[in-house]
Amino acid sequence: MEYGMYYLELVTPYESILRRMNKVLASGRTKYQEYFIFDTGAFGKVLVLDKDVQSTERDEYIYHETLVHPVMLAHPRPRSVFVVGGGEGATLREVLKHPTVERVVMCDIDDELVEMARKYLPEWHQGSFDDARAQVVHADARAWLEAHPETYDVVIVDLNDPVGEDNPARMLYTVEFYELVKRRLNPGGLMAMQAGMILLTHHRMHPVVHHTVKQVFRYTRSYHNYIPGFMLNFGFIVASDAVDVAGLSEGTVEARILERGLQLKHLDAAYLEAMFVLPKDLKEAIASEQMVSRDAAPFWLTEEGEARQQA
Amino acid sequence: MEYGMYYLELVTPYESILRRMNKVLASGRTKYQEYFIFDTGAFGKVLVLDKDVQSTERDEYIYHETLVHPVMLAHPRPRSVFVVGGGEGATLREVLKHPTVERVVMCDIDDELVEMARKYLPEWHQGSFDDARAQVVHADARAWLEAHPETYDVVIVDLNDPVGEDNPARMLYTVEFYELVKRRLNPGGLMAMQAGMILLTHHRMHPVVHHTVKQVFRYTRSYHNYIPGFMLNFGFIVASDAVDVAGLSEGTVEARILERGLQLKHLDAAYLEAMFVLPKDLKEAIASEQMVSRDAAPFWLTEEGEARQQA
Amino acid sequence: MEYGMYYLELVTPYESILRRMNKVLASGRTKYQEYFIFDTGAFGKVLVLDKDVQSTERDEYIYHETLVHPVMLAHPRPRSVFVVGGGEGATLREVLKHPTVERVVMCDIDDELVEMARKYLPEWHQGSFDDARAQVVHADARAWLEAHPETYDVVIVDLNDPVGEDNPARMLYTVEFYELVKRRLNPGGLMAMQAGMILLTHHRMHPVVHHTVKQVFRYTRSYHNYIPGFMLNFGFIVASDAVDVAGLSEGTVEARILERGLQLKHLDAAYLEAMFVLPKDLKEAIASEQMVSRDAAPFWLTEEGEARQQA
Amino acid sequence: MEYGMYYLELVTPYESILRRMNKVLASGRTKYQEYFIFDTGAFGKVLVLDKDVQSTERDEYIYHETLVHPVMLAHPRPRSVFVVGGGEGATLREVLKHPTVERVVMCDIDDELVEMARKYLPEWHQGSFDDARAQVVHADARAWLEAHPETYDVVIVDLNDPVGEDNPARMLYTVEFYELVKRRLNPGGLMAMQAGMILLTHHRMHPVVHHTVKQVFRYTRSYHNYIPGFMLNFGFIVASDAVDVAGLSEGTVEARILERGLQLKHLDAAYLEAMFVLPKDLKEAIASEQMVSRDAAPFWLTEEGEARQQA
Repeated sequence: MEYGMYYLELVTPYESILRRMNKVLASGRTKYQEYFIFDTGAFGKVLVLDKDVQSTERDEYIYHETLVHPVMLAHPRPRSVFVVGGGEGATLREVLKHPTVERVVMCDIDDELVEMARKYLPEWHQGSFDDARAQVVHADARAWLEAHPETYDVVIVDLNDPVGEDNPARMLYTVEFYELVKRRLNPGGLMAMQAGMILLTHHRMHPVVHHTVKQVFRYTRSYHNYIPGFMLNFGFIVASDAVDVAGLSEGTVEARILERGLQLKHLDAAYLEAMFVLPKDLKEAIASEQMVSRDAAPFWLTEEGEARQQA
Repeated sequence: MEYGMYYLELVTPYESILRRMNKVLASGRTKYQEYFIFDTGAFGKVLVLDKDVQSTERDEYIYHETLVHPVMLAHPRPRSVFVVGGGEGATLREVLKHPTVERVVMCDIDDELVEMARKYLPEWHQGSFDDARAQVVHADARAWLEAHPETYDVVIVDLNDPVGEDNPARMLYTVEFYELVKRRLNPGGLMAMQAGMILLTHHRMHPVVHHTVKQVFRYTRSYHNYIPGFMLNFGFIVASDAVDVAGLSEGTVEARILERGLQLKHLDAAYLEAMFVLPKDLKEAIASEQMVSRDAAPFWLTEEGEARQQA
Repeated sequence: MEYGMYYLELVTPYESILRRMNKVLASGRTKYQEYFIFDTGAFGKVLVLDKDVQSTERDEYIYHETLVHPVMLAHPRPRSVFVVGGGEGATLREVLKHPTVERVVMCDIDDELVEMARKYLPEWHQGSFDDARAQVVHADARAWLEAHPETYDVVIVDLNDPVGEDNPARMLYTVEFYELVKRRLNPGGLMAMQAGMILLTHHRMHPVVHHTVKQVFRYTRSYHNYIPGFMLNFGFIVASDAVDVAGLSEGTVEARILERGLQLKHLDAAYLEAMFVLPKDLKEAIASEQMVSRDAAPFWLTEEGEARQQA
Repeated sequence: MEYGMYYLELVTPYESILRRMNKVLASGRTKYQEYFIFDTGAFGKVLVLDKDVQSTERDEYIYHETLVHPVMLAHPRPRSVFVVGGGEGATLREVLKHPTVERVVMCDIDDELVEMARKYLPEWHQGSFDDARAQVVHADARAWLEAHPETYDVVIVDLNDPVGEDNPARMLYTVEFYELVKRRLNPGGLMAMQAGMILLTHHRMHPVVHHTVKQVFRYTRSYHNYIPGFMLNFGFIVASDAVDVAGLSEGTVEARILERGLQLKHLDAAYLEAMFVLPKDLKEAIASEQMVSRDAAPFWLTEEGEARQQA
C-alpha cells in the first residue's frame, strides 16, 4: 500500500476497507448526512454517504440494473413509478429506460445531495433529472406518500440500512410503511427494494426485512447479487399482491426486454431469474425469522449486524 | 476501528482489507509460502497464505461445498478422486462425504502447511487426513501426475492465482497441464477448479482460464459464488469431454444428493444450477477472450488483474 | 506498506500508528490490562499495554535511563529506592546499576504482567528480578505505601496516563498521593516520575501533573526527551523538598557517574542537564496551568489530551 | 479510528502514520513532486510533499524557528540571506523578522508549489513573498548559485532527504555543494541546514551529512528538536569558518533577540543553547561516521535509513 490518501470504510466491527483516493472531488455534510465523492483507480468516482460506499462509477450499472429492472419487467406495462431515495439519479435513469413510463416521482429528502449529484456525478444521472417525465421532490418519503394520495404501478425503495438505535430510516422499514406503499400501488402494482447486505447467514438485516414485508404483501421474493464496489453480496426484494415475480417465465422477461428495447449491460432474462434462487442457508435464515418491524417497535441493526427491536 | 492487531490484505492495488485479529495462532514461512493463522470476531479462525485469505472457519463450508459438489454430483458414481492443492483438508472432507468414493489422492506440495492444518485447523479437515480412503502426497502436482499413470473419475484443482511474473503456479494453468489432467481422467471423468476472483468484468483471470481450459475439454462451464470471508465473488470451472454439467437437470442433482445422503449447508440442487448462470457482462468477457496460456507462454496476472503472457 | 500483520496504535483521535509485526509472541489480558508482545523490524520486541506502546527492545534504554538516572544522580548516596509500576523490570535494572543501592522495592499491581516480562522480555530485566537487593510486590502502590511506613531515598513513579474518566490510575496523580510519597521519603529524598507525552503545547497532561506535584514539593522540575519507539517527546518530573535538581552542576553529575561506574548509553552529564531546559511554549503552558488534581476531584485526560476534573 | 478520509505516511518500512483528514484542500503533482494539502483536527492544515509531511499549521513555528534563528542569531548583523528550498514561505517569514536583513533570495525549483503555497498556506508565508526585501527565484539552487557570484551573510538549506538511488536532491548533499555554498558566504558568514530525522541512532542520515559538511567548514555543529507534527526528532546543522555557534554565550543570544525585537514562540536563548547538546549515542554515531558524500559518489538513503554510496 503506497503513501497517499485513503478512505476508511468500516464494513463490520471486524473488517474495514481502505480505498486509495486519487483525488477528492467533494466532501462535507448536508443537513442529513456526511458525503464524500472521490476518484479511485479501479472503480472511478466513488460516492460515500455517512460511512458506506453508495455506488461507484464503474459498477453502479450492476447495482442499479439489479434494483430497477426485475420489478419493472415484472409489470406488463409500468406507466407510473415512485422512487424513495436514489439521490444520485441512476435509479431514475434506469426507470426512464422503460418506454412505457409516463411519470416518475423521485422523493429524496436531501436536496443538497441531489445538487451535489447533479454537479459531480453526471455519469450516474445522465440528465435524467431533466427528463420531462421526472419530478424530483425533497421531502420525507413517508410523510409525502401519506399526504399525496396519487398511486403508481411501481414503487422502488432505495434506502440506507437502519444501523443504530436512533437511525431515522428505521421508520421506513416497518409494516406500517409497507402498508402505506401498498395503498399507493395501482391494481397489479409492485414494490422493489434494496434489502441489506448478505455477508453471512447470521446477518439479520435481510431476513427481518423479508419477514416484515411478508406481513403486508401476498408475494414477497428475495433476490441477491454481488456488487463489486461494495465487496459485498446484496439482498433485494420484490413484493406484490398481484404478481409473483418468481412465477414469471424466462421467455416473458426476455420478450419484455426486447419489446421495450432495453440495453442492459449486466442482466439478461436468465441471470435475472437466477438471482432469485437463494442458497440453502439464506433460505433457512429467512424461513426461520420471527421478527416483524412495526412502528410501535421498529427494528434496527447493531454494527455487528444483529437485529434489535425497541420494547 | 479500535486499537489492536490487524491483518492487512492487499486485495487490489487500490483496495485493502484490514481484519481485526483477536489472537495470532501461528505465523511463519514454510519452504513454499508465508502463512498466518489467526482468530477473528466474525469469521472465527482465518488462514492466510502469502497475501490472500484462503478460508475462514465460519464460511469455509461455502467455498468448499461450491468447489467440490458440482463436479462430484455431475458424475453418476465417482469412485476415485485426485485433489491438487487443498492443504487445509476441507476439500478432502467434502469429497469423502460422497459414499461412492473409494480412493482420494490429495497432492499438496507443502508438507509443513499440511502439518500446520492438522494441528491448528481441525474444524477444516475434521479428521479426513486419517480416513482410510485418503492418501496425502507432498509433491509438485504436475510432476506427480506425469510420473503416476493412475486415472481418476474426478480431478479437483484448488490453487492460488498466478499473480506475478515468476509465480510457480502459472505452469499449472496451461493447456499442457489441462491435457495432462485429461489423460488422468477415466472415461466419463470431470475436472473442477477454482478459477479466480470476479471483481469486475475487467479482471482477466477468469476469462483467460476459461478460454484455456476450453482448448482442451469438449464441455467447459463456468460458475460463480460469493465467498463472504473473501468479500469477493469467485469463479469456478467444471470441464469434461463426457459430461456437460450445464445439461444436468435439477431433478438428477437432487436425486444424487438424496441417494448419497449428502448433508449440505449452502447448496441445494436449485442453487447449484443457478450458480452456472452468469451475468451478461461476464459472459461477454469470457466469449471475447483470446488469450490461451501455454507452457511456451504461460499467462500471469498483474496486481491490477491484467493478464500478461511471456513472448 | 506490505501485506501482513500490524499493530494499530491510536496516538490521538486524529493520528494513528500502524506498526508492522513480524511475529506475535504473546497477547491476552491480565486481571488489569490487555497486553501485546510482538517483534518488529526496526525496534525489535515491542510491549504494548492496553493501547499504548510501553517500550521497545531497541530503544528502551533511552526511556529507562531518562526516567531513572537524573533522580538517582541528584541524590548523593541513594541507598533505598521504591519503584511504582515498572513491570518490565528495566527501571529496576537501571536503579540497581547504582552501587550505593542496598534495597529496591518494586510495586506493580499486575503479577501476570511481571511473569510475562520474566518470560518474554529478558532483554529488559536482565535478571534484575533475581537481584538480592530487589523485592517485588504485587499490590496497589498507594494502598501498599499507606500500609507500610518504611521510607526511601528515592521514589520512582512509572505509570500510564490517566486517560478516561474511570481510569484507576487517576488516584495516583493527586496531591494526596504525592503527599503520601513525600512522607515515605527519607530526609534529602527525591521523587521522579514519567509525566506524559508532550505532543503539542495544548496537551494538558504535563502541565497539570507539574502543577499538582508543585503543591506538594518545594522543588519541582520538568525535563523531556524524545523516545523514538513512541514517536513522541515525553515529559518527566523530579521533585524534592531538599534538592533542586536544576541547581546541580554538570561537574557534580559527571563526578557521580564516574564514582558509581555507571555505563550509560544515552545520557551524559551535559545531556542530562540539557533535558531540563524546556522550550518557551512549554514553559509558558506550565506556568499558566491552574488545575490541581486532588482526591476529591482527580483529573483525567480525554483522548484529545484535554484535562477534565470531576466536580 | 472512525470512518473517513486518511493520509497514509510511510515513515519507515515498518511504521506508518494514518492522519485523519477533515478536508482535502488540494492535491496533485507539479513538475517536480506530488503534493497534498489537507485539514486535520489537531494540527490544522498539513502540507505533504511526495510522501512526507513538510509542515503543519499548528506547529510549523517550531520547525521554522528551529531552522532559522540559531544561524541568524549566531551572526552579529545578517544583512543578506540565501534560502535553498523553503517553498511554503515560512523560512522567509522567519528570516525577515530580523530587522538587520536587507535582502533575501529564496530559490525553490518548484514554481507551482510556491503558487500553491501563496494560495492555500497564507498562515505560513503571511505575505513574506511580497516583502520588498525578498526575491523569489525558481531554479535549481546549485546551478543558480554557480551562475550568480553574489555572496550572503547566511545561507539556509531546507531540502528533502535524499531517499532513493535516483533522488535528485543527493547532488545538494555533497562536499562540492557545500564548497559552493561556502564560496557564496561573505566573510563571517554561516550556513544552516535541516539535516534529517533522528529516529534511532542507527539512522545514518544525520551522521553522514554532519561528516560531509565537516570536510568543508571549520566549525560544524549539530542540534536537534522534536517536531510534533512529524512525530519525529529532527537534526539540524550550523556550519561556518568564522563562527562557532557552540561558543556563543546565552547572554549574547539573549541580547541579540532583544536588540532585534524578535517575538519567538518556541525558542529562547536557553533552549536554543540546549538544542546543541546531543545525547551520548548520537554524539558517538557522529564521531564514528566515515562516509563523505562527494559528487563522484553522492550518498543516498534507503527506506530503512541506511546510507549508500555509488561506487
